[in-house]
Amino acid sequence: MFILPQKDSGTPTTSPGSVSTQGLHSNHGDGLEREGSGKPDQKPLKLYGVGDPTAMFSSDSPYLSSRGSIIKWFWDSAEEGYRTYHMDEYDEDENPSGIINLGTSENKLCFDLLSRRVSPGAPLGGIPSCKGLSSLGFLGTLPPESLLLASAALGTTFPPSWESHLPTGLSQSDMWRVEPSLLQYPDWRGHLFLREEVARFLSFYCRSPAPLKPENVVVLNGCASLFSALATVLCEVGEAFLIPAPYYGAITQHVYLYGNVRLAYVYLDSEVTGLETRPFQLTVEKLEMALEGANSEGVKVKGLILINPQNPLGDVYSPGELQEYLKFAKRHELHVMVDEVYMLSVFEESVGYHSVLSLERLPDPQRTHVMWATSKDFGMSGLRFGTLYTENQDVATAVSSLCRYHGLSGLVQYQMAQLLRDRDWINQVYLPENHARLKAAHTYVSGELRALGIPFVSRGAGFFIWVDLRKYLPAATFDEEMLLWRRFLDNKVLLSLGQAFECKEPGWFRLVFSDKTHRLRLGMQRVRRVLEGKSQVAEDAPSC
Amino acid sequence: MFILPQKDSGTPTTSPGSVSTQGLHSNHGDGLEREGSGKPDQKPLKLYGVGDPTAMFSSDSPYLSSRGSIIKWFWDSAEEGYRTYHMDEYDEDENPSGIINLGTSENKLCFDLLSRRVSPGAPLGGIPSCKGLSSLGFLGTLPPESLLLASAALGTTFPPSWESHLPTGLSQSDMWRVEPSLLQYPDWRGHLFLREEVARFLSFYCRSPAPLKPENVVVLNGCASLFSALATVLCEVGEAFLIPAPYYGAITQHVYLYGNVRLAYVYLDSEVTGLETRPFQLTVEKLEMALEGANSEGVKVKGLILINPQNPLGDVYSPGELQEYLKFAKRHELHVMVDEVYMLSVFEESVGYHSVLSLERLPDPQRTHVMWATSKDFGMSGLRFGTLYTENQDVATAVSSLCRYHGLSGLVQYQMAQLLRDRDWINQVYLPENHARLKAAHTYVSGELRALGIPFVSRGAGFFIWVDLRKYLPAATFDEEMLLWRRFLDNKVLLSLGQAFECKEPGWFRLVFSDKTHRLRLGMQRVRRVLEGKSQVAEDAPSC
Repeated sequence: MFILPQKDSGTPTTSPGSVSTQGLHSNHGDGLEREGSGKPDQKPLKLYGVGDPTAMFSSDSPYLSSRGSIIKWFWDSAEEGYRTYHMDEYDEDENPSGIINLGTSENKLCFDLLSRRVSPGAPLGGIPSCKGLSSLGFLGTLPPESLLLASAALGTTFPPSWESHLPTGLSQSDMWRVEPSLLQYPDWRGHLFLREEVARFLSFYCRSPAPLKPENVVVLNGCASLFSALATVLCEVGEAFLIPAPYYGAITQHVYLYGNVRLAYVYLDSEVTGLETRPFQLTVEKLEMALEGANSEGVKVKGLILINPQNPLGDVYSPGELQEYLKFAKRHELHVMVDEVYMLSVFEESVGYHSVLSLERLPDPQRTHVMWATSKDFGMSGLRFGTLYTENQDVATAVSSLCRYHGLSGLVQYQMAQLLRDRDWINQVYLPENHARLKAAHTYVSGELRALGIPFVSRGAGFFIWVDLRKYLPAATFDEEMLLWRRFLDNKVLLSLGQAFECKEPGWFRLVFSDKTHRLRLGMQRVRRVLEGKSQVAEDAPSC
Repeated sequence: MFILPQKDSGTPTTSPGSVSTQGLHSNHGDGLEREGSGKPDQKPLKLYGVGDPTAMFSSDSPYLSSRGSIIKWFWDSAEEGYRTYHMDEYDEDENPSGIINLGTSENKLCFDLLSRRVSPGAPLGGIPSCKGLSSLGFLGTLPPESLLLASAALGTTFPPSWESHLPTGLSQSDMWRVEPSLLQYPDWRGHLFLREEVARFLSFYCRSPAPLKPENVVVLNGCASLFSALATVLCEVGEAFLIPAPYYGAITQHVYLYGNVRLAYVYLDSEVTGLETRPFQLTVEKLEMALEGANSEGVKVKGLILINPQNPLGDVYSPGELQEYLKFAKRHELHVMVDEVYMLSVFEESVGYHSVLSLERLPDPQRTHVMWATSKDFGMSGLRFGTLYTENQDVATAVSSLCRYHGLSGLVQYQMAQLLRDRDWINQVYLPENHARLKAAHTYVSGELRALGIPFVSRGAGFFIWVDLRKYLPAATFDEEMLLWRRFLDNKVLLSLGQAFECKEPGWFRLVFSDKTHRLRLGMQRVRRVLEGKSQVAEDAPSC
């Protein structure tokens, strides 16, 4: 989906301080070309950095410990935009002038499917057929595009004739069970029945060469908790994980708040330097450079975090790339945490996604730890279900020991096991429909961006597009980026700004497209209004 | 329920090192008297101690950080008995010679009531009436005593005519709802609808003088997590909380594993020293002594943990006592964490329980933090629901910030709100029946102990009896206590030994009685067998 324009590449991207933001050419395979910022700034970029999560810390409480004050400060400061949003949420009927949220990475396209699958007494099998919907009275709740998309899903890797397999109108009684064992103290690793189901699920969807084992599975209440637990059991206080940036910024808190672990950034940049490269491409050279840089600052690096598909880039690593990164880690005895929470949200068939668990041989299986959750792939971030897969029993046991603080209800564990084992529903209903809806929403938003002449990065995975708004900044600074972000918010559309992802080039924004058409349309209108009326609004904008 | 024999009290209990284990007289109001150990040991007891959770630590992993190794070691070493139990669990039909668990503090008496209340499509209102049960087909699943107990509940503080209020056979459709907001990222403090319900629930059941406020409520996945979060936000690494011992031993891990916070023990002893005293009584003098002792060892104490009703003593603090402890804390600017997870499990009507939230005026409301959960009072330790109530917004916010790692499913939050708001079911069905069953089970086990001539402490709250088996130890050592514990386990009954609660007098055991009659009967038979065949078995016992 993502075809790259080529550029002469004399300067290796690993030369410290020599890479320029000038000349970005982020293009889209289906027509868009050379929408670079055209700015003349030649600001040298660092290729690594070591995060200090408390650099901006500025509050204190007589009641809290120093770390307690920092923990509170994260809450107070980190979510300003989201708090503004929650005070004025858009609602089609009750608050049509409220804020449209294109900032939070949630999949809001498939609630109808999920709701019917997990509700007791609901018909089995999600959408029985497009025709069946109206007779079941669901038509009113579905957006028009989903009816078209249901058949558009035929081109996915799942059985093309899925509609014919669907049972219709059966009573769904398999999701809710209340047994004594589910209400009593659990095995803190997760109930065995669930770990067995997770192992089977990951074996199938990650295409593992051999069946995965339940004893390597630990279940807990989301990947945020898993980052917290892994940071604590793998690192001493003050040690660090390498992470390619831009990255999902909340990880900073996840490893720091309890674990006191820092992140050492491997800065990626938008410049395309050769035939086989793409914007923000991660290379082993960059990893080596960042590791060396962190070491030179006296920071002990204990591991590497890889997000695949990547957030916010939507990038997907090839098996060859994965192997290279893993070998780099092995050379330096680094743990690798591979966050695969978007692995089933690769909606573009041409993108060949490969889980790290699909590799024939892991370079260092005892230091390779895989994370997955239902938050993204099943659109249920409020359900709080995540899982670790690791062959290292020391790591599994240590994380399990912390699972007393990350446990999820036995009832939810039962429901998750039932959901994950329902291969028919997942393969024949949920995934094709979900992918078709994601693809349609992506097509709409990317079309709008193209119409506005805005370059972006997107490869057909995840819920977001990484948008290059650098040309709308009067100067290439994060202050200007923040001003633009506030103008969006003042105009009732919430985006995520690049600085929140530790992007080193001011002017990039993450735009989430996995939402219903009417909200996307209104959101994109507001984005357009801000960008077209930029100069006037800028003068009126409140100070940062 | 608990009437104390008197003893001349010349020696104040606060004199360090002067208190003897000799002359314990732990009696039971309804007949049992003077079942002291009669041992002549005159070992001086320390009145305080500062815990070193890693004192026994002896394993290391090349893959883990030093704290990770300790965290793993807790898992490996702390639950030996429970692992043995889980490999050989008693089952009436399938494993009748398996281990009976009288060690884990869970209420296994009311699963039928809970199951019917939380299941979709189940009849509303739990037990409609004793007569109604057989017609609904529940008779087979209920133990005979519960039928008797249903009417025995008339003597509780709840409406005596509750049976007549019961709706029968209605469809229970209010527990399960799947809404987008429940599947999306939550407010990490807990959904507002749940915090509102918790505030109303605590206002009513804690009998607060004024309505409690939702903004003071934080919801998370159990009190283990709450201890972890409070320790982290209130203390620096290495600081400590005071805790009267014996105490629920898992708190050691809860404050240490993530928070690196230690416990400073306020040692209580069994000796009764005056008219108004009882065994293991907490006094302000003991608190002062322990605080001074910890300070003298250079340990900074930041707070005091009170468990009320107490675990493992089943003790209940009077309002006057509570005020004294709180004033002590205020004098020293200590936070007080009041763990009230057994507040609705006071099954003896004559015991006047008072929540700290019922006090007209808290001495230091900004440093008073109340903990409650459904694990004990609603017999659902596997559901993972706990809550903090604090007027201190700094503390509430800092804990909320950590709630990203302690979140519970939106679906469970909805279910909990529905459960907590169902005052009719709680007051008219669940609590009277639960209390009656607890009382009957307690009556049976205490009768058995009496028949064996075994002294014990119990006041009619909680799920356990604190049993004095000192006379069965050949020597008053923890090695002998452990040998006795192993003999119980070898004879297929699991108890909890006093050392696990940091009790300073070897020979005390916690015996959980909140289980079905057939298991209690078999368990008590095995206990009796061990105690009666003590000398022979002792010689064959494996080494510790």
